[in-house]
Amino acid sequence: MFRFYYAPHTCALASHIALEQAGADYEAVRVDFATNGQRRPDYLAINPKGRVPALVTDRGILTETPAILMFVCQTYPGVGLAPLDDPFALAQVQSFNSYLCSTVHVAHAHRMRGHRWADDPAAIVEMQRKAPQAVSECFELIERHMIQRPWVMGDAYGICDMYLFTLAQWLEADGVDLARLPRVVEHRRRMSELPVVAKVVAQELASPR
Amino acid sequence: MFRFYYAPHTCALASHIALEQAGADYEAVRVDFATNGQRRPDYLAINPKGRVPALVTDRGILTETPAILMFVCQTYPGVGLAPLDDPFALAQVQSFNSYLCSTVHVAHAHRMRGHRWADDPAAIVEMQRKAPQAVSECFELIERHMIQRPWVMGDAYGICDMYLFTLAQWLEADGVDLARLPRVVEHRRRMSELPVVAKVVAQELASPR
Repeated sequence: MFRFYYAPHTCALASHIALEQAGADYEAVRVDFATNGQRRPDYLAINPKGRVPALVTDRGILTETPAILMFVCQTYPGVGLAPLDDPFALAQVQSFNSYLCSTVHVAHAHRMRGHRWADDPAAIVEMQRKAPQAVSECFELIERHMIQRPWVMGDAYGICDMYLFTLAQWLEADGVDLARLPRVVEHRRRMSELPVVAKVVAQELASPR
Repeated sequence: MFRFYYAPHTCALASHIALEQAGADYEAVRVDFATNGQRRPDYLAINPKGRVPALVTDRGILTETPAILMFVCQTYPGVGLAPLDDPFALAQVQSFNSYLCSTVHVAHAHRMRGHRWADDPAAIVEMQRKAPQAVSECFELIERHMIQRPWVMGDAYGICDMYLFTLAQWLEADGVDLARLPRVVEHRRRMSELPVVAKVVAQELASPR
């Protein structure tokens, strides 16, 4: 059985959906960001980066969304959440997820966590001001060049869909004009209607036990 | 045969080393960043992100370092550059590479390319000021928690080594105190002595043809 550390409204949602979709035996543990739980010593012992997600397995602890997503795919190959045996197709999946973690999530983070890259409050405010533009440019690239239908990779539903859906949760708060992103918005709606996705989202947003 | 687009002093070095190490049949094509070649229409047709690396294959074009690295591993499985058949070990590789692309490279980019996240020149200067601290924190985490010996993953040399070596090229320019990173520095030296690595570095730094 896995233990999965997450917080609501974070990128951990993607891995959470993957675990649920794969039918994994896991316990979800909420990290309380409101009280800075991700910086507590007991959590830092699990993930020294002080971030979510983290997946505790019987062989050790895994962090980073693209890694956890691929681990779930490889652990449950019969579920078919990634084209594991086709190097080019798998590289396309990996490329999409890498773009999300290294560029799209990072653009968003400049609205939320500018203190990572600047101390001067004026610089942090300036990053917040520009974040809508930076996030918009990322999603417009996805809209134009990366997203197929009905799923990101065409007919094959999988981990790219879970990850895109997760980052697309933040579009309104990031000040992005949704009218320019019809494919992204349609994809988000289609994802939200999947029973597994609806279940995980509801669980994450429910009051802490 | 692959065509591989790179520029010197960029993260494309990691994929370049992987192609060479795998014995791939490829042609390396330099993109001239000095004249903004990455924004020229002919290059944007290859990679709409306007960045390197990009790998042209007979099935299509791949971008993003972690994706290209894994593609090389899967295309040349006999070379053994990643533990392809061990989901947990492969996830550790992926986790390390994800951290490099989403956090370490991003911290560095705030010294070089702050214009991605701010327009105000004062904010860009503030990012440059803080970059040494942010990059140092990343590498100290790697030093303490992520790097084994003799290679990142212990006895198995592979794509994590190529990627770490690549980002470690920038430590001095990023203003990082190397005395705090003995394992990283030793790893970089060990990598630089590999004939394949030395060959690729020399090729990239040679004058353009």
